[in-house]
Amino acid sequence: MKIAIINGPNLNTLGTREPELYGNTPFETFLSGLRQQYHQHQISYFQSNDEGALVTALQQAGEECEAVVLNAGAYTHTSIAIADAVRSLEIPVIEVHISNIFAREEFRRRSYLTPVCKGLIAGFELDGYRLAVEHLIR
Amino acid sequence: MKIAIINGPNLNTLGTREPELYGNTPFETFLSGLRQQYHQHQISYFQSNDEGALVTALQQAGEECEAVVLNAGAYTHTSIAIADAVRSLEIPVIEVHISNIFAREEFRRRSYLTPVCKGLIAGFELDGYRLAVEHLIR
Amino acid sequence: MKIAIINGPNLNTLGTREPELYGNTPFETFLSGLRQQYHQHQISYFQSNDEGALVTALQQAGEECEAVVLNAGAYTHTSIAIADAVRSLEIPVIEVHISNIFAREEFRRRSYLTPVCKGLIAGFELDGYRLAVEHLIR
Amino acid sequence: MKIAIINGPNLNTLGTREPELYGNTPFETFLSGLRQQYHQHQISYFQSNDEGALVTALQQAGEECEAVVLNAGAYTHTSIAIADAVRSLEIPVIEVHISNIFAREEFRRRSYLTPVCKGLIAGFELDGYRLAVEHLIR
Amino acid sequence: MKIAIINGPNLNTLGTREPELYGNTPFETFLSGLRQQYHQHQISYFQSNDEGALVTALQQAGEECEAVVLNAGAYTHTSIAIADAVRSLEIPVIEVHISNIFAREEFRRRSYLTPVCKGLIAGFELDGYRLAVEHLIR
Amino acid sequence: MKIAIINGPNLNTLGTREPELYGNTPFETFLSGLRQQYHQHQISYFQSNDEGALVTALQQAGEECEAVVLNAGAYTHTSIAIADAVRSLEIPVIEVHISNIFAREEFRRRSYLTPVCKGLIAGFELDGYRLAVEHLIR
Amino acid sequence: MKIAIINGPNLNTLGTREPELYGNTPFETFLSGLRQQYHQHQISYFQSNDEGALVTALQQAGEECEAVVLNAGAYTHTSIAIADAVRSLEIPVIEVHISNIFAREEFRRRSYLTPVCKGLIAGFELDGYRLAVEHLIR
Amino acid sequence: MKIAIINGPNLNTLGTREPELYGNTPFETFLSGLRQQYHQHQISYFQSNDEGALVTALQQAGEECEAVVLNAGAYTHTSIAIADAVRSLEIPVIEVHISNIFAREEFRRRSYLTPVCKGLIAGFELDGYRLAVEHLIR
Amino acid sequence: MKIAIINGPNLNTLGTREPELYGNTPFETFLSGLRQQYHQHQISYFQSNDEGALVTALQQAGEECEAVVLNAGAYTHTSIAIADAVRSLEIPVIEVHISNIFAREEFRRRSYLTPVCKGLIAGFELDGYRLAVEHLIR
Amino acid sequence: MKIAIINGPNLNTLGTREPELYGNTPFETFLSGLRQQYHQHQISYFQSNDEGALVTALQQAGEECEAVVLNAGAYTHTSIAIADAVRSLEIPVIEVHISNIFAREEFRRRSYLTPVCKGLIAGFELDGYRLAVEHLIR
Amino acid sequence: MKIAIINGPNLNTLGTREPELYGNTPFETFLSGLRQQYHQHQISYFQSNDEGALVTALQQAGEECEAVVLNAGAYTHTSIAIADAVRSLEIPVIEVHISNIFAREEFRRRSYLTPVCKGLIAGFELDGYRLAVEHLIR
Amino acid sequence: MKIAIINGPNLNTLGTREPELYGNTPFETFLSGLRQQYHQHQISYFQSNDEGALVTALQQAGEECEAVVLNAGAYTHTSIAIADAVRSLEIPVIEVHISNIFAREEFRRRSYLTPVCKGLIAGFELDGYRLAVEHLIR
Repeated sequence: MKIAIINGPNLNTLGTREPELYGNTPFETFLSGLRQQYHQHQISYFQSNDEGALVTALQQAGEECEAVVLNAGAYTHTSIAIADAVRSLEIPVIEVHISNIFAREEFRRRSYLTPVCKGLIAGFELDGYRLAVEHLIR
Repeated sequence: MKIAIINGPNLNTLGTREPELYGNTPFETFLSGLRQQYHQHQISYFQSNDEGALVTALQQAGEECEAVVLNAGAYTHTSIAIADAVRSLEIPVIEVHISNIFAREEFRRRSYLTPVCKGLIAGFELDGYRLAVEHLIR
Repeated sequence: MKIAIINGPNLNTLGTREPELYGNTPFETFLSGLRQQYHQHQISYFQSNDEGALVTALQQAGEECEAVVLNAGAYTHTSIAIADAVRSLEIPVIEVHISNIFAREEFRRRSYLTPVCKGLIAGFELDGYRLAVEHLIR
Repeated sequence: MKIAIINGPNLNTLGTREPELYGNTPFETFLSGLRQQYHQHQISYFQSNDEGALVTALQQAGEECEAVVLNAGAYTHTSIAIADAVRSLEIPVIEVHISNIFAREEFRRRSYLTPVCKGLIAGFELDGYRLAVEHLIR
Repeated sequence: MKIAIINGPNLNTLGTREPELYGNTPFETFLSGLRQQYHQHQISYFQSNDEGALVTALQQAGEECEAVVLNAGAYTHTSIAIADAVRSLEIPVIEVHISNIFAREEFRRRSYLTPVCKGLIAGFELDGYRLAVEHLIR
Repeated sequence: MKIAIINGPNLNTLGTREPELYGNTPFETFLSGLRQQYHQHQISYFQSNDEGALVTALQQAGEECEAVVLNAGAYTHTSIAIADAVRSLEIPVIEVHISNIFAREEFRRRSYLTPVCKGLIAGFELDGYRLAVEHLIR
Repeated sequence: MKIAIINGPNLNTLGTREPELYGNTPFETFLSGLRQQYHQHQISYFQSNDEGALVTALQQAGEECEAVVLNAGAYTHTSIAIADAVRSLEIPVIEVHISNIFAREEFRRRSYLTPVCKGLIAGFELDGYRLAVEHLIR
Repeated sequence: MKIAIINGPNLNTLGTREPELYGNTPFETFLSGLRQQYHQHQISYFQSNDEGALVTALQQAGEECEAVVLNAGAYTHTSIAIADAVRSLEIPVIEVHISNIFAREEFRRRSYLTPVCKGLIAGFELDGYRLAVEHLIR
Repeated sequence: MKIAIINGPNLNTLGTREPELYGNTPFETFLSGLRQQYHQHQISYFQSNDEGALVTALQQAGEECEAVVLNAGAYTHTSIAIADAVRSLEIPVIEVHISNIFAREEFRRRSYLTPVCKGLIAGFELDGYRLAVEHLIR
Repeated sequence: MKIAIINGPNLNTLGTREPELYGNTPFETFLSGLRQQYHQHQISYFQSNDEGALVTALQQAGEECEAVVLNAGAYTHTSIAIADAVRSLEIPVIEVHISNIFAREEFRRRSYLTPVCKGLIAGFELDGYRLAVEHLIR
Repeated sequence: MKIAIINGPNLNTLGTREPELYGNTPFETFLSGLRQQYHQHQISYFQSNDEGALVTALQQAGEECEAVVLNAGAYTHTSIAIADAVRSLEIPVIEVHISNIFAREEFRRRSYLTPVCKGLIAGFELDGYRLAVEHLIR
Repeated sequence: MKIAIINGPNLNTLGTREPELYGNTPFETFLSGLRQQYHQHQISYFQSNDEGALVTALQQAGEECEAVVLNAGAYTHTSIAIADAVRSLEIPVIEVHISNIFAREEFRRRSYLTPVCKGLIAGFELDGYRLAVEHLIR
């Protein structure tokens, strides 16, 4: 199965900044472990701080992959453009958040993405990505 | 590991009513499969239509188990009593929803439980319970 | 025709408490008159102060009756669990209120039940139950 | 008993337009059946698309009739003028809606009329008018 | 000075209905007293229950009079059309209310008219009309 | 093609009042130019300050025309009755506004009509009507 | 008749500051004209920038006067303390505003005072005080 | 004097869970001290996690006691059913909270109960119950 | 123990104005009874209609007393300045209200003070002050 | 005349994705038809998924063109940056939407752009762009 | 240059209370340093806990000074009276806050003063006053 | 000291567009003056219309500089992504706005950035940047 993991803004500093909130494993380290564990599957990876680049990445994933695991970071709460991109895909998209966004600021409780995603996994640190993959390959 | 699965109102009719929304597997069928798959672990099960009974069940799980997988059904959106019970536990509680509650009515978007749970898994049908267990036994 | 009348919290004190608001006929007195008038039909009756018991009663009525007349009392305004139980039934449910709930406190104007019931009758004292039955047996 | 039935905007097209929502019986057909069934009573009828004309009709009904059955259509949700006219009457006014207005758009959930009417009957198609009459002649 | 007094819905029943709220002097009685007191001035009078008729009356007053005293009744709170008509006039319009609308229901506190009128006089019963005239002829 | 242009309250003073907002061409002048330009088509015209009259005009246009160009003026923001009339038509209705209503008061930003119209053209002065016709005859 | 005129914050600069909004007559000048015109009556005057001083002044007026004309300035919109003082008086209090407060900022549209005053006069510059006196001595 | 103390959900774990918030005295310990101090009075006690059971307990207290001290816990903020039960009693009901609920989450600031209780005591830990009794026996 | 009782606006008229709401005991009468009952303690008293004077009084009480009993009257709902003064004290402050402020107007339900006070006692008339003292001297 | 057409996010998939909502003509096909029809005019075209790129494109169009036709897609509802760029231009900008955004989700009803554009055309599929051009070249 | 520094409620305890929030330099100490640094300029100083006294101080500063540096403390969020006083001045007023009020309670985010001040400096402790002076003397 | 100045969307047109709002000095001109005045310090500069580019620039500044002066322009009000980037930095970030954003549209009053910045300077035109630097180098 071809799965695209797409990460949004500030997730490039994972493992370095605010470790008390996001842990101290860089995403690349986690990713290579994940690819090893699910080596029969193809897991592509894209990160950008840019809303438009994420829209484009989702459009391309729709052409080339069978599923998307999406952590749009802060754009989750502000981007209708990304939500529109997700909605127009015909493959399943799973929304993942590392922290429990509902236990934080009020403005993090609204997600434009959840209504157009298949489902949501939040609060399990990096293991959330694995659970998403685990569900998809079933 | 001792894990309690606790289900709230109307989840006793799973598999019978509104299959287009909730699928047509009765929870008991799913549960015995789950127990088989994770036979090294002890998975207890409790369902009630009653808010108070769920509060009591959570208090007891806090005494007897190491983790809770909780689908409080409609009480998710209205019960501060259950949220208080969760918050007072010292073991992790994972919130699960069968359907993507964020893609439904506006009033299903507010959860009193998520801020006091470790994390949230929603929209993966019955597989959501398995993902929760999967994460816990890690 | 088999019709279930289901009454919610505080309706067990009907005829005794707050007669200026709810009249002074106990529900049982009214019920036996109603059964007499519609003696070709079978009218079952259930009252509970308990949200969960009302959910269960609705589930059972869905098995055994052809229609439900429901006055969920104060749960009308707070219970998504009861609304979910109503929505999952395949028989018609009619919402009845003794007083005109819209002429009272603001918080009594929101009903979780009306959108999932066939219709609403409010403000006709106990005669509202009779009108509901009258419509159903048509 | 002299009862006035007063219908508001767009109810003149009943039976012709949007039959899936409002049925396909013209109101006149229904009315003659109703008059036949309750032939000991006098049932007058007035319809207008005009808010002001409905205010005037209510004022006149207050002079000439003993009760009013009012379906103000869309003005239900926007007209304080009609509500004022109802409030100033000394005879009972019953609010009727053909469809279940609470299962439709958000803005149809607010009624200026219900707090000043005796009661509300909604969601029983044309039979709602009959139930109102049935209650009044009691 | 030519002054038009324009009254809105339900003000034709003044003196008859709800005297505890609006007093029991019919407007005609009051008006002839007013005309006598200010006999050097010409005071025209128009009342309608109809929003559109009030719009038209305001447009005509703009052609024929030097000032308007307007009590739009319930339309005060709901009619942008009347507000637009007032705004487009080049003569002063004074808003009058018989009762203190701010001491009543919440929805009577919003007036579309006040921002486009010269000023507001509310709560002085019929004397409010006289105060408006008194100010205009100064 | 038979097209009905229907104008709402205060649009009868076009060209006379508030020219800085609405221009100084009377609608009749504009209309005759429009009819000349599109002489193969039949363009009927109706204006009223009256909400009810507009409802009736829309119902009639539904019988006699193939399309409607509607500028409901201030009723755009307050009339569910007109919106209901539009929704019940089977011919396309295009909403037109002379000024850019979104650049004005907050309460002019809500339109009951837009969701039930085919589309909206706002801010192009009288040319907006022509664009609507231009689109319809395509 | 003994009438107290009580003015709130910033009204001591009347005639000096922001003349385009409040005119350029100092209140003292206006007051002596008013006293002359109504010389059979006793008109006391108090101004303070201080909320507490206004509360005390109202309490004293309740002891010594037969009516109050109150322009509480900005405290109109923020002071429940002044509103409580007004409500506890047994003599009539008339609220006056020099400018049309409803045609200004949103936060000037809420008045804690109007519901507890007899009536409101706004938008007539200093003449509003005279109209209030005019009404009281009737 | 016969006084009923009624405690709501999660108050059975008092002294055990979240001692930093609720102290570490079990309610039973406190209660026997209280009974000793006020031994001329009869103090009954009831606790339940169940909304319906609390409604029933209140109804019974209304029959058998002269006053109620009620800490409805989380139901304070969500239960209209309990509020209705309180309102229908003819004996005084005093609302008590152990912690200062107003210094906590926003949703704990709304109480359905306070408007129908005689008064409220919050933030004094278990001593709040004693203050309530102290007031009642006066 | 040195306790300061501080009363806000309009509480100087206690016993005189609105006795149906606040009783007819002047505060001074009550105070001397209270001092007698708790003669081992020193109870100072300050009342002002002035927000700023109350701020200053609280600052001084923080220097000279061991606890404060505060009834800020209407400033409870509007004064962040008083709340800031309370928050900066290191001695306990208890908020007292004579009437049940939650059973009155909506705007009396918000208190800026409660979150920064130790606790709240409302609805017990003057006895509320005694309960506060009773708790403090414990 | 030099006109810039600027399209926002996801409009690059026009004709391919969600054809039931947006039709199945790729924008390029439509554009070449448009250029042919208006060959005396110069129509430039720019599309980007990127908010910042759209801001820059608008700034450049302000230098090089005489008018802009802007469909900012989802950024319409979230981008103050684009609105600022539009507002700072001295040439007319016309907002176009392919679908009737007002008949869709609530969050699509707010546009930051409309108040700063000359006008709005929505709901006419690709023909909306032509109508905009049609108006501009007049 | 003559500059008035005006400080509002609770700023007289600066350096003593809540040093973790406001630092532990008394304002007087800071002020004498400031005067020394800018000895070519005249810096007057006024502090009051009283809203009315601050209004009066602003009016006087308008007579005697060329600029005002204003920290209205808690009145920033509640006082329209002070805002009115600021607006009526013809000299520039700069709003200063010691702490970052936007990082604190929700109700501290609304300032009545900022819209009528020249600018805002917040979060720089006492140095904020210096920056304001620094800007003014430029 | 190494200070990064980062400017957001539309600030590249400073000095050219809307000079009545933003003045007519290009930022580059101002910057060279600033660098001259503070020549012992190193001031880097970055401007972008792109939200993602600003996130990245902030991350880099966190590596290379000791402080940031940030004017995020319109993104101030809409970008949680930039706020997240600011929050994760360990160096101080000062928010600057050229105009007084609180005296403009309602939507410009919410800043996602202020709560995570050290402080805010708004309304002092370009001098705001200098004040920020002035504070930092202290």
